[in-house]
Amino acid sequence: MTSATSETAQPIRVALLGCGTVGTQIVRLLTEQADDLTARVGGGIELVGIAVRRPNKHRDVPAELLTTDAAALVTRPDVDVVVEVIGGIEPTRGWLLAALNAGKSVVTANKALLAEHAGELFDAAGRSGADLYFEASVAGAIPLLRPLRESLAGDRITRVMGIVNGTTNFILSAMDETGAGYSETLDEASRLGYAEADPTADVDGFDAASKAAILASLAFHTRVTAGDVHREGISAVTSADFAAARALGRTIKLLAICERVRDADGQESVAVRVHPAMIPRSHPLAGVNGAFNAVFVEAEAAGQLMFYGPGAGGAPTASAVLGDLVAVARNRVVGGRGPRESAYADLPVRPIAQASTRYHISLDVADRAGVLAAVAAEFAQHEVSIAAVRQEGRANDASLVIVTHSAPDAALRSTVDKVAGLPFVHEVVSVMRVEGEES
Amino acid sequence: MTSATSETAQPIRVALLGCGTVGTQIVRLLTEQADDLTARVGGGIELVGIAVRRPNKHRDVPAELLTTDAAALVTRPDVDVVVEVIGGIEPTRGWLLAALNAGKSVVTANKALLAEHAGELFDAAGRSGADLYFEASVAGAIPLLRPLRESLAGDRITRVMGIVNGTTNFILSAMDETGAGYSETLDEASRLGYAEADPTADVDGFDAASKAAILASLAFHTRVTAGDVHREGISAVTSADFAAARALGRTIKLLAICERVRDADGQESVAVRVHPAMIPRSHPLAGVNGAFNAVFVEAEAAGQLMFYGPGAGGAPTASAVLGDLVAVARNRVVGGRGPRESAYADLPVRPIAQASTRYHISLDVADRAGVLAAVAAEFAQHEVSIAAVRQEGRANDASLVIVTHSAPDAALRSTVDKVAGLPFVHEVVSVMRVEGEES
Repeated sequence: MTSATSETAQPIRVALLGCGTVGTQIVRLLTEQADDLTARVGGGIELVGIAVRRPNKHRDVPAELLTTDAAALVTRPDVDVVVEVIGGIEPTRGWLLAALNAGKSVVTANKALLAEHAGELFDAAGRSGADLYFEASVAGAIPLLRPLRESLAGDRITRVMGIVNGTTNFILSAMDETGAGYSETLDEASRLGYAEADPTADVDGFDAASKAAILASLAFHTRVTAGDVHREGISAVTSADFAAARALGRTIKLLAICERVRDADGQESVAVRVHPAMIPRSHPLAGVNGAFNAVFVEAEAAGQLMFYGPGAGGAPTASAVLGDLVAVARNRVVGGRGPRESAYADLPVRPIAQASTRYHISLDVADRAGVLAAVAAEFAQHEVSIAAVRQEGRANDASLVIVTHSAPDAALRSTVDKVAGLPFVHEVVSVMRVEGEES
Repeated sequence: MTSATSETAQPIRVALLGCGTVGTQIVRLLTEQADDLTARVGGGIELVGIAVRRPNKHRDVPAELLTTDAAALVTRPDVDVVVEVIGGIEPTRGWLLAALNAGKSVVTANKALLAEHAGELFDAAGRSGADLYFEASVAGAIPLLRPLRESLAGDRITRVMGIVNGTTNFILSAMDETGAGYSETLDEASRLGYAEADPTADVDGFDAASKAAILASLAFHTRVTAGDVHREGISAVTSADFAAARALGRTIKLLAICERVRDADGQESVAVRVHPAMIPRSHPLAGVNGAFNAVFVEAEAAGQLMFYGPGAGGAPTASAVLGDLVAVARNRVVGGRGPRESAYADLPVRPIAQASTRYHISLDVADRAGVLAAVAAEFAQHEVSIAAVRQEGRANDASLVIVTHSAPDAALRSTVDKVAGLPFVHEVVSVMRVEGEES
């Protein structure tokens, strides 16, 4: 009955790079679940080395496994698979290339590296016949890359949209709930351990942009790098933005959006962007709070799919790494190979200025006749079509909220610049993209 | 840059069994996406035969591909892969066994067959080295089996709970919305095409039970068949049940629940059940309406994951089949094998009488002193602990609602039988399990 254990083989020997939050969990699970993993792989998994910066800081793992020489570890003849949870681009990139060139399969959680150098890594893996798996690089434990790479391999993915950064989602959820401003909420997030000491990678959208590049590459069979992603962070989101959103039954989320778009002449391209956006409170992503992640995938035949779960954390990330490790080890045991790079479509990446989205613009204006007509004329002149308007008087001035139909980024920016200069416009309170509604 | 197409090979030759709603979509997608599929597989996919009952009813597919002789088609030397979308157990089982024995890989959407005979099919695949994939058998296009089999292969899954039957979910959603009874809602569903002419498989929970067996087998590395699944359908769900649910902020869903349970002596077992249950309206599954499916997966390291999407339909099911077909074809081209059966854990299946769930019991009782005390005494005598009570007077009688803590099925049944016989209890209005809350 138990087919897997009948074919025992030499154990698969694993080198681990990094032993922080995620690495510690990997070591724990490798030990605690050794019997299960052996049965699932068809052979044991043996940890033969752990590269760390300061060995004396890791008293909870066997001392004889520790080394500071990652470069030597990754090409050691007794290593079959390299698991990397250090992060960062250099020197990690060189170590993983050396491992792949030496025929070691690689499992990595490194989104920044994948988003910049996936092509180079895949090329090395292709030459040596090694596997390259990276499920943990996006959305923690949520199985997302394997579904994109494999389950939907017979379909045409048109859109991927989701919340892929837990820190910013925690901050935006808290701002929505408390009405507090960005800075004080970031401070609170840092105090609670939800934001790093240097939160730049998260709050400026770099982390989400890396993940968006990885998702777009897989979804559209095209090499997309982090530099191709239009990126706006959350540091400019104000409590006024949230108040404006709330007034219209919306909330604000940092979204990663990857789209396949078709020009009038039929030419397909890919648009990838990360920015805060208002979404209706009824949208499933609106209910994704705190450090959770959720991603929508739309495909022509499958329709709309959603994946939800913890987007980070030691144990969830370790779960994703171990799932990949089992796959890689099983390929070694039974003699197979995981999916390789699929970049055949090679679609052009479209700049954000050409992308069309809807906008929510909130203005403080003088409360007198002709104001709406003048503002509307500016929109008309830039060919930005207005979908909804709401004006409310307040003492001497009025709040004017305009929601547009889908409009090019550039046209909207020019319109807002012009509107801001109108004499009776006191303040542009909030300009925010709108997603998750019919355009 | 385009790695996949560099290694062109002989096309992978596919036999299709069945050409109904799903089969027609498979033929369409194989044609429309031929170039993409070739690039992703690293070689072409060629449809070489389609087995149907009545060839003259299929004017939209090439006549020269049609045959009525499925048995001959599945072992034809020019067939590499058999795709089965006929359904049913016999004679399909024999055809797929013959195909696997002949070394043909099999992709199937057949939940009933898998839930009864997965072991036999896997054994045949194991002997001949063929692949067996069946993503489309559960939850349509939602990538669920691949995540369970592969992404979570390094984790310990503790629970799978979800809505896996679109017909019953459509009916229950409509009953909740309109307040109508079961029979008239079923009629309406049939009229709209959401229920089959003979809806037994759906409304009596057979379809969901098959899917639960497949999910439990993969999640717990144990052979679970449909007969192991405790099954209750929705035909006994009344508008009174929905009214009772609504009064407490709940709704009713048909849930498939697969649990890993541990006895007091540490012995692990598996409990699998399909039944209607009240869940809080705030639970994510409460918002899954109409023909959609959603499944929660809980794993020790990954935490709680959710998968959501269209659970049936021609195109979504075809998407899942084609994803499997690409995997199987790629394994043929690059020389690999998909995951085999993993049943090493071989856990015992625990009967429902031993399972503990919470219950919601709604009674019509006489409105006089001592009633609650007498009812509560019956619960106490059967050691069913009460979590909440709500009593409301109405003219001469009263409505008494009791929600229990987690209690064994058998104890609850005995309690309700005793309570129903009490002289001042006019009617047991509703007895329904409660899920999705802390126990």
